[in-house]
Amino acid sequence: MDERQNSSPTAAILVIGDEILSGRTQDTNTNYIARFLGALGIDLSEARVVPDVQEEIVAALNALRARYTYVFTTGGIGPTHDDITADAVAAAFGVGIDYHPEALALLGARYKPGEFNEMRKRMTRIPDGASLVKNSVSTAPGFQIENVFVMAGVPMIMRAMLEEIAPRLARGAPVHSATVEARIAEGRIAASLARIQEGHKNVALGSYPFYREDGSGVQLVVRGSDEAEIAAVAGEIEAAVRAEGIEPARIYL
Amino acid sequence: MDERQNSSPTAAILVIGDEILSGRTQDTNTNYIARFLGALGIDLSEARVVPDVQEEIVAALNALRARYTYVFTTGGIGPTHDDITADAVAAAFGVGIDYHPEALALLGARYKPGEFNEMRKRMTRIPDGASLVKNSVSTAPGFQIENVFVMAGVPMIMRAMLEEIAPRLARGAPVHSATVEARIAEGRIAASLARIQEGHKNVALGSYPFYREDGSGVQLVVRGSDEAEIAAVAGEIEAAVRAEGIEPARIYL
Repeated sequence: MDERQNSSPTAAILVIGDEILSGRTQDTNTNYIARFLGALGIDLSEARVVPDVQEEIVAALNALRARYTYVFTTGGIGPTHDDITADAVAAAFGVGIDYHPEALALLGARYKPGEFNEMRKRMTRIPDGASLVKNSVSTAPGFQIENVFVMAGVPMIMRAMLEEIAPRLARGAPVHSATVEARIAEGRIAASLARIQEGHKNVALGSYPFYREDGSGVQLVVRGSDEAEIAAVAGEIEAAVRAEGIEPARIYL
Repeated sequence: MDERQNSSPTAAILVIGDEILSGRTQDTNTNYIARFLGALGIDLSEARVVPDVQEEIVAALNALRARYTYVFTTGGIGPTHDDITADAVAAAFGVGIDYHPEALALLGARYKPGEFNEMRKRMTRIPDGASLVKNSVSTAPGFQIENVFVMAGVPMIMRAMLEEIAPRLARGAPVHSATVEARIAEGRIAASLARIQEGHKNVALGSYPFYREDGSGVQLVVRGSDEAEIAAVAGEIEAAVRAEGIEPARIYL
């Protein structure tokens, strides 16, 4: 139904992390990247989480990079034995991997003599043909190879890298949205919503029930690139809610 | 490295939701399910997020259900036009879909006469051959078809459904973990960690740096099914940290 997306760049996220799959860590990077890309008019079309296993990373990365304009990976680029992302990306592209002179210089300048040990040097191993993505937080860089951006998993570092990456990205029409919230069961207005969606194929109309301590209801979200149409659709939704005797609220998230 | 997993059931999560990919909603279901399955000794091996598009759901579901012992889906089983999960699951299995007598009875008893409208009846459309998963929160059921469990996206409802599902699941060896936290740069102990991991192939040893207001450091996590080996490995890690002149803390998450 979301036909505007055909002309926008697309993206996928590949989260590399045993700690996400074990439940030890709540992933927040996907949500941050999703919002960041939305503001640039890039449609996040898929996200995957895979374990720290090379063949899993390779298979997922190759599936995603063939299909979407961009792939953003998070995790696995530190100095420890479980950081295998750079090797996996090199394997996925079928290229070699070696110590990168610029990365060596960056990290060499950061550490005192004797502290730049072999494990830390692992962080300068970059697949052949990749360009660095600077890390303003902790120096060890990410990298870009073709349409794949390899970032750290630590949120603070990932966010800094995303800022470095942004100027390299093609942009689409920014996505706008309006949300109508109503203290109504979604089953009471579902037929109206279906009719409204049918009449406006350039926007995506989503219905999200909520249950809060102060009561339940539904958030009706209109998303698209045409702000005037979004406002018109939000108006139609409000009218449909009022027709059920409920006063809605329009909120902006 | 995680060889214990070979004998445990495996699982994948398929999150169906435009609202996750747009960044509007932070997914918390994956983390909850991951922890829930870990306690049952079921290895969560992969997670994917796909949009509310039938062919995307079908393709992802068929890939995952062929590969893992179980697949858990969340989202898209409400009464509105954007709730297309049941139809997509039926399409993935190549079976029909129809109003399910037991689901009709459950929801028919919930609503007052005249309130059980056509859109609400959509929630009783269940793929042929599926069994219901009760919903103790809001009645409208999820369902199981072969190794696939279809749950609501609203976290409160999803959690209730997971409790209903638990007795149907095969269990593996529960996963245990110990965490050693140290105010040390991970690059200083990376070589020791690699050596310890090399000596204990039945546990998974992960290194997760943190940056907090009161300082930075690393959490070193040992995971496995043998509690004695986990304790021994945690002891080796503590010794390696102390060898660097830092006093570690063992914490339990």
